[in-house]
Amino acid sequence: MGAMETINSPANARLRALVRLRRRRDRDAAGVTLVDGVEETSLALRSGARMREAYWCPDLDDGRAAPLLDALSERGVPLVQLSRVAFEKVAYREGPDGMLAVLEAPGAPLSSFDPASPEFLLLAEHVEKPGNLGAILRTADAAGVDGVIAADPVTDWGNPNVVRGSKGAVFSVPVVSAGSEETLDWLRARSIALVAATPDTDVLHTDADLTGPIAIAVGAEKEGLSPQMLDDADIRVRIPMVGHVDSLNVATSAAILLYEAVRQRARRHD
Amino acid sequence: MGAMETINSPANARLRALVRLRRRRDRDAAGVTLVDGVEETSLALRSGARMREAYWCPDLDDGRAAPLLDALSERGVPLVQLSRVAFEKVAYREGPDGMLAVLEAPGAPLSSFDPASPEFLLLAEHVEKPGNLGAILRTADAAGVDGVIAADPVTDWGNPNVVRGSKGAVFSVPVVSAGSEETLDWLRARSIALVAATPDTDVLHTDADLTGPIAIAVGAEKEGLSPQMLDDADIRVRIPMVGHVDSLNVATSAAILLYEAVRQRARRHD
Repeated sequence: MGAMETINSPANARLRALVRLRRRRDRDAAGVTLVDGVEETSLALRSGARMREAYWCPDLDDGRAAPLLDALSERGVPLVQLSRVAFEKVAYREGPDGMLAVLEAPGAPLSSFDPASPEFLLLAEHVEKPGNLGAILRTADAAGVDGVIAADPVTDWGNPNVVRGSKGAVFSVPVVSAGSEETLDWLRARSIALVAATPDTDVLHTDADLTGPIAIAVGAEKEGLSPQMLDDADIRVRIPMVGHVDSLNVATSAAILLYEAVRQRARRHD
Repeated sequence: MGAMETINSPANARLRALVRLRRRRDRDAAGVTLVDGVEETSLALRSGARMREAYWCPDLDDGRAAPLLDALSERGVPLVQLSRVAFEKVAYREGPDGMLAVLEAPGAPLSSFDPASPEFLLLAEHVEKPGNLGAILRTADAAGVDGVIAADPVTDWGNPNVVRGSKGAVFSVPVVSAGSEETLDWLRARSIALVAATPDTDVLHTDADLTGPIAIAVGAEKEGLSPQMLDDADIRVRIPMVGHVDSLNVATSAAILLYEAVRQRARRHD
């Protein structure tokens, strides 16, 4: 590792550019995002993220980075060594462990998404909390969806909290964004049934047929799905609730619906 | 409201005692917990929490507290009016909205929990993140469980982040704590089947019979259920996962299992 580039000064221009990547505007302009930490960087790499460069601080690494350093080297990812004071300037989380990477930002416009025969999609309309989006992605990945559509053109898929909450799934699952109208057109053109979660129906999610080509739609944290989305839904379903709490978290709703679809779809071939 | 007690000085001894309630040791000693905010206080009240007293700051209230003030008054909850500087000393979240309440802490030892015929329980072993515990409670409430057992005697049910995450369900669902051994004895004595979630089985959760008296068990965020809990389980089930991510969030797993049980149990009577 003698030839590794080293930066010791926190005033270095390249580090200042890294710090700016915490802002969405700068991430969008550069088309990249950041991951901070050995575990997150490993997850992103395993999930297929395209790494631009990685930053490593031997003084902060307790030895856990070794296998990751090998993997980065194998893939030819440029590695820069930082002094402790330099790394602490660019790390964005508390208790940094000496690894940070810059990756190509996930997410693309829906218009560029044209899988051969999409059968099982998740649609999140105006879900705003990065933690919820990340959790939805993690579950969607486990459930085996063909993609996640954010029916919200400003969704920030590269938000570090989305990346972290998704456990890398934001890189392994195709994630795309579009307005609600464009999303509905896209689904119609492919004869994919829109399955909308709403309290305002008598049909339980377990009584609906979720075995065909479907997009399961969940709505914003407070308001749920928009009237437009509900009006255009092919199937409206309700998750039964009997307690004092009158709603489920949006990521919880998504998980219950996705896994009911998984259950039904496994039985298609019985 | 002319007779309402008023505290203007942030140095007031009662306020200093309130601030100490942010520490678990002091909450445990007093047997109370705190909720901060109009929405949370309303949820707790609706969920059956026993309020000791409430604190209201007219200067921070944009008028949304009015119905809650009426409800507190109807139930005879003592209300103390605070100046802005006094309220800001006791509020524990950013952007306080002028309402804070002290309530009897939720949670009891398992030994005091003896419902007539418990049929549907959730068991969380060593789940440590308050946000996960809160999310589990919210879903457990919606699914209609008879109670949630923390197989961990030190679980802090009164942690403000559990209270918040549960949306009040920590007050509406019976929540109890005990060690793992005591929990297993308690279930055995009542012939309640322990259903353990684990990746190490071929039985899918949708193929197991979840229609009898059951306790669905989910384990710690990283390690999952303890070997003891897995050994003693009557039914071991796996949630199928096909993606790059090799685990689900513990609250997500709980939701998927609880709602599969809800589905099967609704069909018992068909």
